[in-house]
Amino acid sequence: MSEPIQAFYPDDFAWCYGCGRLNAGGYHFETRLWGDGTVTEFSPAKEHTAVPGSVYGGLIASIIDCHSTGSAAIFALVERDEAIGSGPAPRFVTAHLEVDFLAPTPIEPLRVVGRLVEFTERKVLVDSELVVDGRVTARGHAVLVQLRDESATP
Amino acid sequence: MSEPIQAFYPDDFAWCYGCGRLNAGGYHFETRLWGDGTVTEFSPAKEHTAVPGSVYGGLIASIIDCHSTGSAAIFALVERDEAIGSGPAPRFVTAHLEVDFLAPTPIEPLRVVGRLVEFTERKVLVDSELVVDGRVTARGHAVLVQLRDESATP
Repeated sequence: MSEPIQAFYPDDFAWCYGCGRLNAGGYHFETRLWGDGTVTEFSPAKEHTAVPGSVYGGLIASIIDCHSTGSAAIFALVERDEAIGSGPAPRFVTAHLEVDFLAPTPIEPLRVVGRLVEFTERKVLVDSELVVDGRVTARGHAVLVQLRDESATP
Repeated sequence: MSEPIQAFYPDDFAWCYGCGRLNAGGYHFETRLWGDGTVTEFSPAKEHTAVPGSVYGGLIASIIDCHSTGSAAIFALVERDEAIGSGPAPRFVTAHLEVDFLAPTPIEPLRVVGRLVEFTERKVLVDSELVVDGRVTARGHAVLVQLRDESATP
């Protein structure tokens, strides 16, 4: 598989608890271009439980959140015809996040697949499906906005 | 303050990574009746970062998720005129979760306040505000459904 977009976030913006490669305590979600969409895979631990046997909804929301910001960065590069890894990746943040929990998600390897719904200068819309054992157990819908350097300074 | 609703979840349903009192590795969010609404307070750790200085959106979604299920349980008891702690608390799960991220949330003590929007046999709607230093930085909207014993068996 190709390198994840998170490998190319500038160091100052690589501390996210969900997907920052520099956050030692975080989840290290990794999002990749996959066909004309995106994919993020993650294997939850047993402690990531909601009711016993099912993945915690907050973790599902977390994966979809970082998957969506990563997907927006990937789609931005595709839109600009720039190769992933040819330079620092743009850093998007989430303005709005929705998750529909369709069925309990078993504690097994998770795959979140994303597709671009809308791309404008102001915002990017990404829809996602969480797939486990070939079944969609949750759907995500996110609105992402790109951080500008001036507003993003820690 | 009164005891949190999570103290009264039956043992089998007290393992949630967000709010389960029996999950040693989890966040232990606690939700209480507060006036005619609800409140959940939590102090994020430095590692719960999005971009440096701001709380991770996935953690915000997690707090709002558990706060909403806990609030639904509290509102259900109020609706039935049962005291919190007079018996096992009903256990709700999230069917739909929305979060609007209005502004960066500084890494300081967080307070999520909830209010009942709609209560029916089938579902409970809870709206929430995340307040930090007197400012609302995120809003949540959740649709909760009560677990029935037969569907909830682990």
